[in-house]
Amino acid sequence: MPKIKLVISYDGTDFHGFARQPGLRTVQGVLEEHLAKIHNTPVEVFGSGRTDAGVHAVGQVVHFEREVGPPAERYVYLLRRSLPPDIVPVSAEEVAVDFHARFSVRRKTYRYTIQRANVPDIFTYRFTWHEPRPMDVELMRRAARDLVGEHDFTSFCASTTPIEDKRRTLYQVDVTERGSYLDITCSGNGFLQYMVRIIVGTLVDLGEGRLRHSIPEILSARDRAQAGRTAPARGLSLWKVDYEAE
Amino acid sequence: MPKIKLVISYDGTDFHGFARQPGLRTVQGVLEEHLAKIHNTPVEVFGSGRTDAGVHAVGQVVHFEREVGPPAERYVYLLRRSLPPDIVPVSAEEVAVDFHARFSVRRKTYRYTIQRANVPDIFTYRFTWHEPRPMDVELMRRAARDLVGEHDFTSFCASTTPIEDKRRTLYQVDVTERGSYLDITCSGNGFLQYMVRIIVGTLVDLGEGRLRHSIPEILSARDRAQAGRTAPARGLSLWKVDYEAE
Repeated sequence: MPKIKLVISYDGTDFHGFARQPGLRTVQGVLEEHLAKIHNTPVEVFGSGRTDAGVHAVGQVVHFEREVGPPAERYVYLLRRSLPPDIVPVSAEEVAVDFHARFSVRRKTYRYTIQRANVPDIFTYRFTWHEPRPMDVELMRRAARDLVGEHDFTSFCASTTPIEDKRRTLYQVDVTERGSYLDITCSGNGFLQYMVRIIVGTLVDLGEGRLRHSIPEILSARDRAQAGRTAPARGLSLWKVDYEAE
Repeated sequence: MPKIKLVISYDGTDFHGFARQPGLRTVQGVLEEHLAKIHNTPVEVFGSGRTDAGVHAVGQVVHFEREVGPPAERYVYLLRRSLPPDIVPVSAEEVAVDFHARFSVRRKTYRYTIQRANVPDIFTYRFTWHEPRPMDVELMRRAARDLVGEHDFTSFCASTTPIEDKRRTLYQVDVTERGSYLDITCSGNGFLQYMVRIIVGTLVDLGEGRLRHSIPEILSARDRAQAGRTAPARGLSLWKVDYEAE
């Protein structure tokens, strides 16, 4: 069966996360509903991974299979006409049958944005964490470097995470000032639950002088309690998903 | 009675406009509700003017009177803690008793933003009109200049506008490119209903080659039917309100 790869953006504010849940408005649920209308038959969507309630996406990737239907390049037009404005179809293409939105992922990139101005900007409040307290950005930048590489991220995920192997590789943790905003960009081969938000909360706690431990100490403790806050979902966006052989 | 001048920003998407309406969520209604809580007594708010449903504000100005209450500079903190995130208090100060948010206005500035990229940006869709068709921006810029000055704006307001005197003075109509966005900034001594949105719709229709008449012809016709579309509310923001003796 032909397989379609779809890149979508969404504003996560008014969704109960990506993953389908009965009776709740979710990204997967809304997308499946509109794809079912286009095909006149149920369509199951597979995402590159879940995003939590309130988390956004610039380049989330999903795939679905379909017996018959429009040419791949028509989906962007058809879905844009059909979907609510908080889900935007970005691109669509037919892919090989062995492509899988989740299992073929090579690298994921997230961006977290902190708004540091005293008065929150009305144009960005849905996509940023407003944290105007002074922070030592240089110190945060140095601490971020200690996260890069392969580590056991037990201290940087929800203490209830069921996955046993918590080793992941981070390729990049960049702290960048953009006017009164601070962007923290993380890319890696995989992320545990709340991992980016705990990384951001910990870097901010360090920058604000609220944490005594260094990143190497927190990593080696393998204890969630040693890391900092979980930063709020609103500032987080799944930025890009890269696949094998791209 | 002490009079407080308050500057607020809001995201108009989820409001039925500025003006209080029974049973509907409006900016004035929500603001009065939260000010009543702070003062333990009803507070009536006067705005610089209404904004229509879906229209935003960066610098809307309101005033209210109160017998007793916190020092003026405390309102920003108290309201920020209390208001929903789509209304942001920007500044507060005590003003002279003859100040009136509506009657003392000297100049108002609106900004309208058009998003021209093929794929709408998820971070700005609530605040922009997505219109990716090609337009002749230089032609729009020249046409905008013909609107500056004192004119009868009958052709550029809702045909149902009850106000008899439709002469207004525009000080500025600027068309500015900002990456894939186009900002149209209008400032003047007063605006009629839908005036900025009809100005924007007309400039876009001219830029897209859909209108034959020039701005001077449309102005002198004094006929709404001669102007272009009414641009959607979502792209419009009340940017700034200036007062006498500021």
